[in-house]
Amino acid sequence: MEIPAQDAAHMARAVELAGRGHGTTSPNPVVGCVVLDAAGEVAGEGFHAYAGGPHAEVVALAQAGERARGGTAYVTLEPCDHTGRTGPCSQALLDAGVARVVIAVSDPNPKAAGGAARLRARGVAVTSGVLAGEAGRVNEEWLTYARLGRSHVTWKFAATLDGRSAAEDGTSQWITSPEARADVHRLRAASDAIVAGIGTVLADDPRLTARPTPPAEDGSGVGDEVGVRRATGVRVPLRVVVDPDGRTPPSARVLDDQAPTLVAIADDVETDLKADLLRLPRHAAGLDLPALLGELAAREVVSVFLEGGPTLAGSFIGQGLVDRVVAYVAPALLGSGRAALGAAGVRTIGELHRLTFDDISPIGPDVRLIARPTTQPGREK
Amino acid sequence: MEIPAQDAAHMARAVELAGRGHGTTSPNPVVGCVVLDAAGEVAGEGFHAYAGGPHAEVVALAQAGERARGGTAYVTLEPCDHTGRTGPCSQALLDAGVARVVIAVSDPNPKAAGGAARLRARGVAVTSGVLAGEAGRVNEEWLTYARLGRSHVTWKFAATLDGRSAAEDGTSQWITSPEARADVHRLRAASDAIVAGIGTVLADDPRLTARPTPPAEDGSGVGDEVGVRRATGVRVPLRVVVDPDGRTPPSARVLDDQAPTLVAIADDVETDLKADLLRLPRHAAGLDLPALLGELAAREVVSVFLEGGPTLAGSFIGQGLVDRVVAYVAPALLGSGRAALGAAGVRTIGELHRLTFDDISPIGPDVRLIARPTTQPGREK
Repeated sequence: MEIPAQDAAHMARAVELAGRGHGTTSPNPVVGCVVLDAAGEVAGEGFHAYAGGPHAEVVALAQAGERARGGTAYVTLEPCDHTGRTGPCSQALLDAGVARVVIAVSDPNPKAAGGAARLRARGVAVTSGVLAGEAGRVNEEWLTYARLGRSHVTWKFAATLDGRSAAEDGTSQWITSPEARADVHRLRAASDAIVAGIGTVLADDPRLTARPTPPAEDGSGVGDEVGVRRATGVRVPLRVVVDPDGRTPPSARVLDDQAPTLVAIADDVETDLKADLLRLPRHAAGLDLPALLGELAAREVVSVFLEGGPTLAGSFIGQGLVDRVVAYVAPALLGSGRAALGAAGVRTIGELHRLTFDDISPIGPDVRLIARPTTQPGREK
Repeated sequence: MEIPAQDAAHMARAVELAGRGHGTTSPNPVVGCVVLDAAGEVAGEGFHAYAGGPHAEVVALAQAGERARGGTAYVTLEPCDHTGRTGPCSQALLDAGVARVVIAVSDPNPKAAGGAARLRARGVAVTSGVLAGEAGRVNEEWLTYARLGRSHVTWKFAATLDGRSAAEDGTSQWITSPEARADVHRLRAASDAIVAGIGTVLADDPRLTARPTPPAEDGSGVGDEVGVRRATGVRVPLRVVVDPDGRTPPSARVLDDQAPTLVAIADDVETDLKADLLRLPRHAAGLDLPALLGELAAREVVSVFLEGGPTLAGSFIGQGLVDRVVAYVAPALLGSGRAALGAAGVRTIGELHRLTFDDISPIGPDVRLIARPTTQPGREK
């Protein structure tokens, strides 16, 4: 499809706007919108900032006012056609008298889809698929959730250049830098759930809470996500312990009152642990992970931040359930000690799990590598 | 020291020129030189291109001719004061009537040093230490060799994102991309020796030769190093097998006639292997590695390219004998199989080998990370 340069430029701006909602809109998608007046001048811009707040189209149309009449709207995701916490955006666009709507990605959610059809039926010119790749990328978590009916999984690990996350005696504080750890807290805060295995809980007794750097005295340093989260009461990430045999100690920090916690255990285990339990079938040495992700999706967990340890990560990787890898690699060498990743079902080199680097960034003295599986069921090519 | 901006700019150019000799000047240093006339205009530029060829100062002075009289020379390394394959550069600068000489790094080689003193004694204004860090970096291999009396060691490895270099069944072809492998051949070709352990020789039967990408039909694609090497007969890298117990098979590819090979074995081992043997004392489970690097330095091996395997690399790292690490990391995960690095003397996290990233570059679909030890005896701070 030949895309007019002007369409691409306005949609790129809409994608940029959509990204601003990243981490705070769950369980809704991120959406950005740019409205032009009939003369082609930008009249309004908007993005969806948090669930329950106005949709991107509504924000942009409000800004445009009467100038929207006869104009064009660029939307990163097909306008919704249902009345949820807000009215249908398709109707809002019709009411505003927009003459043309340009859409990047169609809505895979059957409840919300149909916006494009309604607009067309009412005589609005609709173009779809403009910058679908970019718009899909910014909305990656939600699209995986909507298309596959499971939470999107980001596996994070921190390791030395030789792939180890602890020394022989089990010590690991600190391999990566304060800058890298702050970045992890930022990503945790933007996730709906933080998942760890029982091995990590027993070994490190982590809190699994998002503790972004507190603002300085002068108020600087408040992250956008955190600010919006505080202002709007967006939920804190759910903590999930994958604990097939119910070994979580009652005194584990992950059970403190800083955030809600779900302990996933096998359905055949007896336990008197005082915690929210999620009963799941067993699978090999662990739990049925697709069932776990399905249950989490049913609880509106769009994005999961998987923090290990190596055994659980190996199970997720081996079953093709990791959608994104975020590796913090420190300029350091161990040569022995705990490997960052445990057995992942690879016996010979042909079975290697191939990824593609999306982003390579220095973070303080470390490097952060973001990669995704080369083939992935939840994403359009 | 306050450095005039003009001095820094001309020295930066001299450092850039010096870098052009990288990989072909061994056992000489790389040196760059810029000569200004009395009015401060650039009159000549030069670099040392290969051992036996003219020194940088001589090239630049020849280009400047009479314009050098009363002018200034910027040299990245103190001009030599001895007659080796060529005459002393200090005398050449005096003969040319240069009024001022600006030096980056003093010559640590007692045979060659004294150039600055001779120039001063003859009334030339001499400034030392300008851009010493940058000039030291470009000449890193040679300065380590000259200061420590041992070869400079670059450890190269290729691994997955989780630090593994072969799958469980030992297969490893190919984890990294053709682009990364071509880059390895380029670095091999710029080294004086390529070192591997007996484990790698027995497992992979490598040739350990530098095979840079051959030129295309139209002559494009010939690397500078290779071109100069062919034109000047610069030696091909020596192959060295670290083989304490003399287990190298007579049929090993590393013993073919493509390049000279040295087999380092313990001094107590009886063998009838038809190969150049280097007898060394034993150390722990292996050989005395400082003795190896000293013997190689005595053979004018300035730079060693260490290619593993994990056991030998662990010994070098553990003994603080690696001056640079070049890691090719593929966007892929194994979860099991051979680790890139074996035991390196670290028991607890406080003993971690800390490095600093010097360069982070995408190479094809992979990433190349270059790092150096945070503290290193062979380099000035």
